[in-house]
Amino acid sequence: MADNIPKVDENGQPLSKSALKKLAAKAEKEAKKAARAAELAAELEQQQLNEPDNCTENYGDMEMVQSQKITETMWTNIEELDERCIGKTATLRGRVHSVRAKGKGAFLILRQGSETLQVAFFVDDVRVSKPMVKYIGNLNKESVVDITGELVKPEQPIESCSNTIVEMTCPKIFCVSRSIQIPLEISDLSRSEADIDNAPEDKQYSRVNQDTRLDNRILDLRTPANNSIFRVQSEVSALFRETLRKRDMIEIHSPKLISGASEGGASVFKLDYMGQPACLAQSPQLYKQMAIMADFGGVFEIGPVFRAENSNTHRHLCEFTGLDFEMTIKEHYSEVLDVIDELFVNMFDGLSERCAKQLEVINAQYPFAPLKYLRKSLRLEFPDGIKMLHEAGITEADPHGDLSTEHERILGKLVKEKYDTDFYILTRYPIEARPFYTMPEPGANPEYTNSFDVFIRGEEIISGAQRIHDPELLTERAKHFGIPVEELESYIRSFRYGALPHGGCGVGLERVVMLYLGLNNIRKSSMFPRDPKRLTP
Amino acid sequence: MADNIPKVDENGQPLSKSALKKLAAKAEKEAKKAARAAELAAELEQQQLNEPDNCTENYGDMEMVQSQKITETMWTNIEELDERCIGKTATLRGRVHSVRAKGKGAFLILRQGSETLQVAFFVDDVRVSKPMVKYIGNLNKESVVDITGELVKPEQPIESCSNTIVEMTCPKIFCVSRSIQIPLEISDLSRSEADIDNAPEDKQYSRVNQDTRLDNRILDLRTPANNSIFRVQSEVSALFRETLRKRDMIEIHSPKLISGASEGGASVFKLDYMGQPACLAQSPQLYKQMAIMADFGGVFEIGPVFRAENSNTHRHLCEFTGLDFEMTIKEHYSEVLDVIDELFVNMFDGLSERCAKQLEVINAQYPFAPLKYLRKSLRLEFPDGIKMLHEAGITEADPHGDLSTEHERILGKLVKEKYDTDFYILTRYPIEARPFYTMPEPGANPEYTNSFDVFIRGEEIISGAQRIHDPELLTERAKHFGIPVEELESYIRSFRYGALPHGGCGVGLERVVMLYLGLNNIRKSSMFPRDPKRLTP
Repeated sequence: MADNIPKVDENGQPLSKSALKKLAAKAEKEAKKAARAAELAAELEQQQLNEPDNCTENYGDMEMVQSQKITETMWTNIEELDERCIGKTATLRGRVHSVRAKGKGAFLILRQGSETLQVAFFVDDVRVSKPMVKYIGNLNKESVVDITGELVKPEQPIESCSNTIVEMTCPKIFCVSRSIQIPLEISDLSRSEADIDNAPEDKQYSRVNQDTRLDNRILDLRTPANNSIFRVQSEVSALFRETLRKRDMIEIHSPKLISGASEGGASVFKLDYMGQPACLAQSPQLYKQMAIMADFGGVFEIGPVFRAENSNTHRHLCEFTGLDFEMTIKEHYSEVLDVIDELFVNMFDGLSERCAKQLEVINAQYPFAPLKYLRKSLRLEFPDGIKMLHEAGITEADPHGDLSTEHERILGKLVKEKYDTDFYILTRYPIEARPFYTMPEPGANPEYTNSFDVFIRGEEIISGAQRIHDPELLTERAKHFGIPVEELESYIRSFRYGALPHGGCGVGLERVVMLYLGLNNIRKSSMFPRDPKRLTP
Repeated sequence: MADNIPKVDENGQPLSKSALKKLAAKAEKEAKKAARAAELAAELEQQQLNEPDNCTENYGDMEMVQSQKITETMWTNIEELDERCIGKTATLRGRVHSVRAKGKGAFLILRQGSETLQVAFFVDDVRVSKPMVKYIGNLNKESVVDITGELVKPEQPIESCSNTIVEMTCPKIFCVSRSIQIPLEISDLSRSEADIDNAPEDKQYSRVNQDTRLDNRILDLRTPANNSIFRVQSEVSALFRETLRKRDMIEIHSPKLISGASEGGASVFKLDYMGQPACLAQSPQLYKQMAIMADFGGVFEIGPVFRAENSNTHRHLCEFTGLDFEMTIKEHYSEVLDVIDELFVNMFDGLSERCAKQLEVINAQYPFAPLKYLRKSLRLEFPDGIKMLHEAGITEADPHGDLSTEHERILGKLVKEKYDTDFYILTRYPIEARPFYTMPEPGANPEYTNSFDVFIRGEEIISGAQRIHDPELLTERAKHFGIPVEELESYIRSFRYGALPHGGCGVGLERVVMLYLGLNNIRKSSMFPRDPKRLTP
């Protein structure tokens, strides 16, 4: 008990002996009071349990759902319940979000996804008995229950629930699946940083760090914000496909198990494939180009991408979802940029429209400024980007190297100031900063390439380019990068049977979601993230 | 030369010495004639080349397309060309499908995907010169060319091209990318078995086997049938998603890199993950169930699935595309079957409607009977299926084991005869034939499970079930199958925080396409197949 007594005053100064004594006495008194209350409650409880229970048919643990029967039950969702339902009976399945039970009654909040409904129980020994209230009070949070009862209009709007206009009274309640004591409260997982910082004086909210969240991902994902993040993610893929399908591109599925070293470099996962050395594809790059050589015109793929990079940053994952497309071009890689432009303007428009509710929910826990984007995206050339950085005093920005993450972020800010957009395309990257299959600009000893990156809020989400379709130039460039061309044999050969000029790009799905929502960590936009230290859950 | 002379007569009997001599003499004569013709042609050529060429601006190899410029060129597709285009000028990019050039003119067939157009060149020394005709004649098949010329109405419909009503005359022609001599003719790759068998007497068509096709997959994929198969495949995924999205399911991306042994069993690909032992997911099973425990209600995934099985059959792959969904159920797994029913009736209807042209093209090379399916799919119980087999004399069909491939096929035939459908659902599989996470039927010592397989033309395309949501039963069943439960820790734990009853299924995309189209090999419906012996291209 004594451990709970503060040893310092409000200003952090040690308390006097007398003050401490006073506090200790007070605490002891409180403890005695509490003990007496518990005793009384136990007595009362015993007494109640000895009373006859008229309501045993109205509550209890259900037999395990095992496809025993098909009934005509009409199931309802919380979000469907409005004024028109008042006075009617409804059946719902949901979780015990919270419960408060006391002698004569109980209040339970039922949750379905992000939706919550208040359910009130009052002992009347017809519908609700004291043992029933006790049963309800003993249900652990997150347990799954079925309730059937009357919907009523609450005396005043229920601010603590998402459904403020309807509540349910005295329903039958059966537990479908009991939860153990949860290690983390959904309310703690759902709280914004601002709410934690501005906690009322009598409360101290616990801050749950990212790793703890991921260790308990199933609970963490149940928060309204997380539930919404993955609805947004699903919609991003849908909008990606819709735009490309309208352009008559087809969806392909390229192999993830490949021989050789994918696109070269050390960061591949290696494995044994039926006795042959194999690796996991670092991207569908080579295969989507081969599909173009097979005359599919335009192809896209949404699938996993594997990178065995030991990058422990807020924006790297060892496995992520690539949104890739590749298309023939007639003359210029600006044809690819036109598709990207259409794709992302459609996507941003579509998200505002289809996910308005989700965006609001996410904003409540993770506040973000709505994305600024132009109807026709800004296309900035790399040398001009470097110039902007130099003019802003970033003199170390290398006109012939890649941009560092930090410089990308600064350039993003400069672009935002100058052009009022969070989304833009940077073209003409230096030749040494791009992969071997990138088409150089025309002319002898080109310094730049027909390539581009695309940025949201100063961070890269897309890399793309015109690709080399000439097998001799391709071989030469692979050699230049020290890639064993024999491992690329079937890839290079596909360009020898007449090659169509083409280009494309790869988009990181988790990055798009993270940056669109202004989240601070890519692990928030990957359902079960894989990083150098994490392989579970 | 002598090697080309047949040494047997038409009946396979050895030829007499005199007959052989006669043949040899004839062959020698032919060879002399051919040599003389070649000489004459060379002379003529030289002569032509010495003549002034007025048309050098109208043909030649183009500079490599390297995004040099953006012109206002209006590009046309062959399929857009109809009577209204006659008299107009058009520009097209396509492949040299075939070319015949002779002194005064040349006929070239231009191909774009499955579409072909006849292009005629006549020497007039204004638009077309003799050296130009020679240049055209020397273009290898499959080379990519740009042509700009006048569209005319042919004297009679051009039966050899897909566009029979328009041809182009005397265009400018520039080669964008030269092909090397192709190892396999597209026409040989495109021929049906029936056409090979019924070849005219003076012709002998070569039959290209599946392995040779796959070794030259880029050329093989250029055939009209293959081009169409992958359009159908793309549409299958699209229809799958459309149906499930309408039911408010979201698309997820579960990790393919997992710790432990996925669902158990030996057939996993193992690898080193940053120093930790890992394997490739055999299905998204565990993760899509975890997503249901995270309250997403209904989820689906389209992604790669890895099986390290040494199965060299017509229907197994080591990597294929899984169409998976998982959903909460209220009472009975028939709720899952209702979704499958809607899904596949929608899919089959949608394919007939959207892919009519592709289906016709595929049928021309790989003839198949249109799929028979009922508006409400047949649901047959496993014990009744066994009964049908027993009654048909297949007495060895085991009522408590799994069905063999052969018995599945026979049952498919019996079902077709009795119910007139190629598509049906078989429910209530024996408990020992299903994975550990399958919900047994209620009662003590259940013999059957709440599970099902779905068949097209007597072959399995789907496996599914109600899943066990009770963590204790799940642990018990895992132990029963000898699966180390500690490797399933995060999976089993996800059911401890209140578990929603649920079910779902996994569909093999390549199998659906193969069986819907009645193809004889799953390698035909996988763009770059992976089997125990094949890891390239």
